[in-house]
Amino acid sequence: MTVILDDPVRALADYVSHDSVSADSCFASGVAAARDFACERLRELGFTVEIVKTPINPVVLATRGDPSWPHLVIYGHYDVQPPDPLDLWVSDPFEATVRDGRLYGRGAADNKGPQIVHMTALHRVLKENPDLPLRITYLIEGEEEIGSPSFRGFLEERKDSLLGELLLVSDTGSPGPDQLVVTTGLRGLTALEVKLFGPRQDLHSGVHGGALLNPLQALMKIGSSLHDDEGRVTVPGFYDAVVAPEQWEREELSRLPLTEDKYAEFLGIDEFSPPPGYSPLEAIRFCPTLEFNGVGGGYQGEGSKTVIPAEAFAKITCRLVPNQSSEDIANKVKAAVEQFCPSAIRCEVFVKGGGDPYVVIPPGKPGSSGSEPHLMKKAFDVAEGCIEGSFGTKPIYLREGGSIPIIRDLKEVAGLESLMIGLFTNEDNLHSPNESFDLEIMEKAISTFEAFFKQLAT
Amino acid sequence: MTVILDDPVRALADYVSHDSVSADSCFASGVAAARDFACERLRELGFTVEIVKTPINPVVLATRGDPSWPHLVIYGHYDVQPPDPLDLWVSDPFEATVRDGRLYGRGAADNKGPQIVHMTALHRVLKENPDLPLRITYLIEGEEEIGSPSFRGFLEERKDSLLGELLLVSDTGSPGPDQLVVTTGLRGLTALEVKLFGPRQDLHSGVHGGALLNPLQALMKIGSSLHDDEGRVTVPGFYDAVVAPEQWEREELSRLPLTEDKYAEFLGIDEFSPPPGYSPLEAIRFCPTLEFNGVGGGYQGEGSKTVIPAEAFAKITCRLVPNQSSEDIANKVKAAVEQFCPSAIRCEVFVKGGGDPYVVIPPGKPGSSGSEPHLMKKAFDVAEGCIEGSFGTKPIYLREGGSIPIIRDLKEVAGLESLMIGLFTNEDNLHSPNESFDLEIMEKAISTFEAFFKQLAT
Repeated sequence: MTVILDDPVRALADYVSHDSVSADSCFASGVAAARDFACERLRELGFTVEIVKTPINPVVLATRGDPSWPHLVIYGHYDVQPPDPLDLWVSDPFEATVRDGRLYGRGAADNKGPQIVHMTALHRVLKENPDLPLRITYLIEGEEEIGSPSFRGFLEERKDSLLGELLLVSDTGSPGPDQLVVTTGLRGLTALEVKLFGPRQDLHSGVHGGALLNPLQALMKIGSSLHDDEGRVTVPGFYDAVVAPEQWEREELSRLPLTEDKYAEFLGIDEFSPPPGYSPLEAIRFCPTLEFNGVGGGYQGEGSKTVIPAEAFAKITCRLVPNQSSEDIANKVKAAVEQFCPSAIRCEVFVKGGGDPYVVIPPGKPGSSGSEPHLMKKAFDVAEGCIEGSFGTKPIYLREGGSIPIIRDLKEVAGLESLMIGLFTNEDNLHSPNESFDLEIMEKAISTFEAFFKQLAT
Repeated sequence: MTVILDDPVRALADYVSHDSVSADSCFASGVAAARDFACERLRELGFTVEIVKTPINPVVLATRGDPSWPHLVIYGHYDVQPPDPLDLWVSDPFEATVRDGRLYGRGAADNKGPQIVHMTALHRVLKENPDLPLRITYLIEGEEEIGSPSFRGFLEERKDSLLGELLLVSDTGSPGPDQLVVTTGLRGLTALEVKLFGPRQDLHSGVHGGALLNPLQALMKIGSSLHDDEGRVTVPGFYDAVVAPEQWEREELSRLPLTEDKYAEFLGIDEFSPPPGYSPLEAIRFCPTLEFNGVGGGYQGEGSKTVIPAEAFAKITCRLVPNQSSEDIANKVKAAVEQFCPSAIRCEVFVKGGGDPYVVIPPGKPGSSGSEPHLMKKAFDVAEGCIEGSFGTKPIYLREGGSIPIIRDLKEVAGLESLMIGLFTNEDNLHSPNESFDLEIMEKAISTFEAFFKQLAT
């Protein structure tokens, strides 16, 4: 019998064709179709599949194997980012197209391609050995791209199904087809929105200008008070809990095949601005940030409109590193904003939530406990060998700047540490037009995971 | 024969219905329709109408009477401010609605209502005496709300048509229906737009945050550097040319029937923020300002999007007092912005033009020359009597915070001093949602100008 996973490129093209955009309810049928696709593949692999309802998009929870076997949990998400701006796509975002060794389409790399890699590898292993003595629980959610709002609730309810020894995740990045990264940490996040209120309504800046404080002027004062001239965050206590990186982490980073010049070229900037004492490539991994993601107020159109606006806003997120806490930093930023706000302006600060940072020390590295579960120790060890076997070099162990709050949640609630093997690259254009997945990485990664699953079960 | 000006409220409603927003080229047809409306009324009044092309919106230039008669020039503008934010309007901004003695609509007070006042008064006087021995030239432009960029060119070309003895303008404010103001000065204006450029495109703030300077962070630094904590503008040399007000000006201001408490209540603020040494009501007349009229960058929608934006902008205007120069201040602000901009960000500052401040000393007041043209002396004298006749009190002679750059241009190029009789009030919400014109003022002002035109010609 042939199954779709016999041809992983075709399988990925199928998966991509289901436009599973979670941010927009117009795509509800695509979301359902992508979920059905994932369930079908898992059933073909012999999994018992359950669809767990949540307030928004159900979670696929599937399992195989004897409860007495070592238990690996695998995470993925079947939802994708919105495709717009559509006019910048060379080919239809939901009609997968192969060009120059890449499969183009929304979600190809984030996260459908990596899921097809895991599933294809499993398909090959299980075809040869249907009784592979490894219990596997698949957890594929449908709200990752909107911040996983239902995930914590799902987790509290179903944590008993997830009490494994390790979580396998391929939703992080690597430098390219010759070098993979095992991600050992993710920054946390805390989001806030600042709203400032001045006069009752927008005022003529000629008739009234000079009598009152402009909310935009107050916003500038507040905003500029949050960093010093060298780029350090000046919120009192912001750095109190920060733990400096280990020496081995700096050394691993030096193995990264990316020069600062290349990185600057990729970003399109002439000058980096990391905080003092850190290189730009260190700063994005080891330093917390306070970023303005959006600022606005007053006239936004063409030309000019001479108003003193009634309101102004700033959307702020902080990226957090161990051992900062999302709640603590939110409170500190809120207090600083309120303190810096001039008395003539009314200020409201809304804490929008976030998640704490996550770090896993690979077994055997300085600082590791030595008491990790057997499957976890084995998995890190086996993964290193399998990656070297397929990609020609050992993985680099690196923390990454982004945030995947559910990784931290799975540790807190189900005690799972994560083995994160990155399969997408900067060139894959995640969240941007012309997202693609590198088929060379896909092929090498399938071999890697084929060996990985086989060795893990022996 | 009935004409539209027989019913001034209907005439104003018609004029308002033409959405003549000059700031946005989408409104081109409304701009043309409002211009046509003005031309039609002037033709009905017996004027010879010429439409003078300019690079953007044509100027209406219309004349009546013998070249040997005393020559009065009347100024107005047929364009209006953008209506947004639309959701704050109680009724459609371009469908005039009368409620509680006010006509609501964009442009009702600025400047269509006052134009209908002049035209209706003239209509009544000329109906009775078609040969009124007063030469009148009407000058109605269509770019006032975008800073009159074509006006100076028009003026240089057509100044021979404008060599009168006085300019009559009703595009300034008064306290209310019981007290008019004759405006004796206007602040100048200079407008700039600051654009900041960071990375090539919006970046993921997790993956890249910490490596580079966020353009919004740079904007905050630059913006906050332009004022000190007490509200003074810190641009080097900004106050160098400022002349303090005369004693009689402060005394006239004390006649203004407006307390600071009432003014604060009107603005909807708890606290004023005038620069040190000035009351709020002095500051808006006698002090220069630097205001942010619009600031933006990054994600503007609901919720959050974790980007480091590629760009940010600030729209800035300065209000200027004698003897500051628009060009000089623009250069100083531009230099300061460029100096405060961090080197990691590319900054472009566009000077958008403006105009110098204007001051006229009423004939007979301390400091006046005594050698004013006959029609000017007579007009100030007659106006005082006619205003007292209709409104019950003599006008207050006051400088005002707004800017009408062309007033200064008309003085420089055509030698015209201005008699500015204010017909709108704070309650009219100029440049804001729910702009309106007070119909009691409209009625009293029509009587005032009916008497004024009659007496001026005898």
